[in-house]
Amino acid sequence: MKQAKVRLYLEQALGEGQTIPLERDQAHYLFGVMRMAVGDPVLLFNGRDGEWRCEVSVANKRNGELVCVGMTKPLQLPPDLWLLFAPIKKARTDFIVEKAAEMGAARIVPVNTEYTNSDRIRQDRLQAHAVEAAEQCGGTYVPEVSDLQRLDKLLADWPDRRQLMFCDESEVGKPSIFDAAHGADEGGWAILIGPEGGFSDAERARLKALPFAHVVSLGPRILRADTAAVAAMTLWQKNLGDWG
Amino acid sequence: MKQAKVRLYLEQALGEGQTIPLERDQAHYLFGVMRMAVGDPVLLFNGRDGEWRCEVSVANKRNGELVCVGMTKPLQLPPDLWLLFAPIKKARTDFIVEKAAEMGAARIVPVNTEYTNSDRIRQDRLQAHAVEAAEQCGGTYVPEVSDLQRLDKLLADWPDRRQLMFCDESEVGKPSIFDAAHGADEGGWAILIGPEGGFSDAERARLKALPFAHVVSLGPRILRADTAAVAAMTLWQKNLGDWG
Repeated sequence: MKQAKVRLYLEQALGEGQTIPLERDQAHYLFGVMRMAVGDPVLLFNGRDGEWRCEVSVANKRNGELVCVGMTKPLQLPPDLWLLFAPIKKARTDFIVEKAAEMGAARIVPVNTEYTNSDRIRQDRLQAHAVEAAEQCGGTYVPEVSDLQRLDKLLADWPDRRQLMFCDESEVGKPSIFDAAHGADEGGWAILIGPEGGFSDAERARLKALPFAHVVSLGPRILRADTAAVAAMTLWQKNLGDWG
Repeated sequence: MKQAKVRLYLEQALGEGQTIPLERDQAHYLFGVMRMAVGDPVLLFNGRDGEWRCEVSVANKRNGELVCVGMTKPLQLPPDLWLLFAPIKKARTDFIVEKAAEMGAARIVPVNTEYTNSDRIRQDRLQAHAVEAAEQCGGTYVPEVSDLQRLDKLLADWPDRRQLMFCDESEVGKPSIFDAAHGADEGGWAILIGPEGGFSDAERARLKALPFAHVVSLGPRILRADTAAVAAMTLWQKNLGDWG
């Protein structure tokens, strides 16, 4: 059996014997860019039905079609973890979204803080990065990237029982302790990573006073936001998530 | 007291009352680019003498001079951890070096594996990235970036008693267990991250058979090399390094 070289996310339903009519850009990618032909295999997932091995049944640049041959991986939802981060420079923001998808965040929430360097994001572009990362890492789920939200509003409407791992760079050098007992299945979690300039004193005071916040140090050096995001998700996944 | 906005690595000696004659490119940066003037503060470190607050005593684009006012941070060496990685695309290789410096590796070793995508590196450029990351993260030490080495040779000449955390992507989905008891002070450690194509079967078999190798899974998704580097260093620093 030929090995699939392409792994794609799409929205169409997947299931035994299901045919998948392709949209024009999907057909262009598979037949124009990847030069696939009738009979060639491709792995597909849609975030709901697991991963399926499919084969090209019609290869036409305008109305190609695939047919599902068999399930190769069941749906595996990530733990209920949100990653909240303040957008930074474009390339690093892209990296944070990519890393969050690879590391198994269920939702990615760009937040506007007092010192946030940018106050607009391109949600569609970031969502596309999350899709690409999911295609690449073998996951069967794509985290949703939210629109930019104000941190103060988000905290004011905070969901009942969701815990918050607050990565405060002013904790630098203190022992890195994260051994919360509250599991992801009891209301979920969020990780908060600050902007380049850190949090304001008012934000920090407010965050530390929240009953659901767990202040965590990420070692003796000040990490960039993208590094901090991966490090914090590692600690969380290892302790409470799906790395166990 | 004016707060220093610039933090720089240089090679000159630092100490109480020491004057530091600047080289032409250093003077250009401080006075041409950063527009600093006599009396302005700057934080300096050289990887040996800790971090010092210095002030501009002569601001001249050709022969500027600084004078050390007082130590602001003692030298803090990272734990004896090497990061071994197979060079990938330029931007991601740069990121891995940056992340290794931030995460507190003592030495960064690009290795050539059977499936390594590139067989040359620009050691000087990578070393400059490590310097920049050290300036940014507040560390007082800059890890040395080695020249590209062949993995098989490196393993053949492996230092006595150094342990190896082998992040094998074929372990994906197995429980992520890393609880080695062997500390960094008993011969040191190295982390090995593979290339995009993973390790060859022969390499994997050889690595697994090494008495000093500890095979570690990084969760249920396949991580890109740069993500894997940060995640592995987080596990290590948290368990055996300076995050404790």
